[in-house]
Amino acid sequence: MTALTLADARKIIAAAEAKAEEIGQPMNVAVVDAGSNLIAHIRMDGAWIGSVDISINKAWTSRAFDITTKHLGENSQPGQDFYGILASNNGKVMIFAGGIPLTRDGKVVGAIGVSGGTGDQDQTVAEAGAASL
Amino acid sequence: MTALTLADARKIIAAAEAKAEEIGQPMNVAVVDAGSNLIAHIRMDGAWIGSVDISINKAWTSRAFDITTKHLGENSQPGQDFYGILASNNGKVMIFAGGIPLTRDGKVVGAIGVSGGTGDQDQTVAEAGAASL
Amino acid sequence: MTALTLADARKIIAAAEAKAEEIGQPMNVAVVDAGSNLIAHIRMDGAWIGSVDISINKAWTSRAFDITTKHLGENSQPGQDFYGILASNNGKVMIFAGGIPLTRDGKVVGAIGVSGGTGDQDQTVAEAGAASL
Amino acid sequence: MTALTLADARKIIAAAEAKAEEIGQPMNVAVVDAGSNLIAHIRMDGAWIGSVDISINKAWTSRAFDITTKHLGENSQPGQDFYGILASNNGKVMIFAGGIPLTRDGKVVGAIGVSGGTGDQDQTVAEAGAASL
Repeated sequence: MTALTLADARKIIAAAEAKAEEIGQPMNVAVVDAGSNLIAHIRMDGAWIGSVDISINKAWTSRAFDITTKHLGENSQPGQDFYGILASNNGKVMIFAGGIPLTRDGKVVGAIGVSGGTGDQDQTVAEAGAASL
Repeated sequence: MTALTLADARKIIAAAEAKAEEIGQPMNVAVVDAGSNLIAHIRMDGAWIGSVDISINKAWTSRAFDITTKHLGENSQPGQDFYGILASNNGKVMIFAGGIPLTRDGKVVGAIGVSGGTGDQDQTVAEAGAASL
Repeated sequence: MTALTLADARKIIAAAEAKAEEIGQPMNVAVVDAGSNLIAHIRMDGAWIGSVDISINKAWTSRAFDITTKHLGENSQPGQDFYGILASNNGKVMIFAGGIPLTRDGKVVGAIGVSGGTGDQDQTVAEAGAASL
Repeated sequence: MTALTLADARKIIAAAEAKAEEIGQPMNVAVVDAGSNLIAHIRMDGAWIGSVDISINKAWTSRAFDITTKHLGENSQPGQDFYGILASNNGKVMIFAGGIPLTRDGKVVGAIGVSGGTGDQDQTVAEAGAASL
């Protein structure tokens, strides 16, 4: 397994940024490495300042549990297996769409987190970023 | 865009305070600038001390996401797009009525946050403050 | 209005403790003053250690919003006016039964918080304490 | 009552680890003593890093309230007695399956917490650990 580099992160972010521009919604985009530590983050002009934290933590969550935050969210509703997980890990667990693990050679090497629009918009932009790896 | 001044904040708070007195419910009222940093806050005599934090963070939330906290709350119920958002940003995300972005010349320049009564009361007082700008 | 003294708090706690012994459930009992600051707390032998924090914060919450935590909880369910309030005030907002404001001469002078059993048990013990003032 | 020793904790963890290997799901396993303080923790190779915190706090919660986290979770859903309890104790309250009190001679002497799979998997592994005492 080759570790995710800053060059990788920049390429992923560029792909996400292009998709965000295409759909006309400014976004925060973050990439973390295999240890769930931040490599790079951008806040596009006009993107919500409340989404800085959310984009970084969506990326953190996706690597911390090797799962999309969308999928984790589906299992964290009242009555589901992980209901209450957002109280753990000091507020870093995000349970709504926009975080996706990044894989290389079948191994998770990091994750991308996107925040700035609706759930569908965040997910679309994150997928564009992840697909570029 | 002209930045929100302390004089602006005082005018907004005075309008909110007048409305709170009119409906007979003491309130906490807070105004933040474009960076979501507090400009001014008042706690009317007899208003809940637990609402100091809530009024300030309703204002923070409204500017951080350029949305009313009432609207954000509607999208943060179980099963909705932003369910779980209150775990983010270190406890600053308020998802119930009373926070409204402040706009000038079509741009968001800050926000007002009100806490001290029912959701309807908080919203009414916040609207009175926002309308005065 | 006469401020709540340590002697008052001890009397309130003794009444709550007697009720807890009567129903056979060891409890944590806390009393706060008008500023919502702790005056006294006891953990009865065998009571849950996780309830230390909860009893103190139920008392805090009841004075901070001049409401029983039971009533606040009814208004903090999904879809209700205060849904999401537990994210505020740094984890001090408790929204389940056991916290009751303490009044003297028609004024709130503090609050009692009880934790250690079911909601009904906590409420019963808190009521016994509050009634002794 | 004899206090839980490190040797006890290692035995419990070994039994849990064996069960996790049997079901093919790497886990985090933690054991706390009667004061709810950590004695030992392991993260099996490949287990989620987000589950370090969760396993330790499931153990903490089970001892703090002398209850399985599964049972506590059933009583912490919207409308239930303990809805909102996850706001207490600074993010240490876990309300989903995987935490079980450890008893000796009919007394709770600590707890085990397991995180790394589905609720059923976590519970199964925790039960195997607890049964070994």
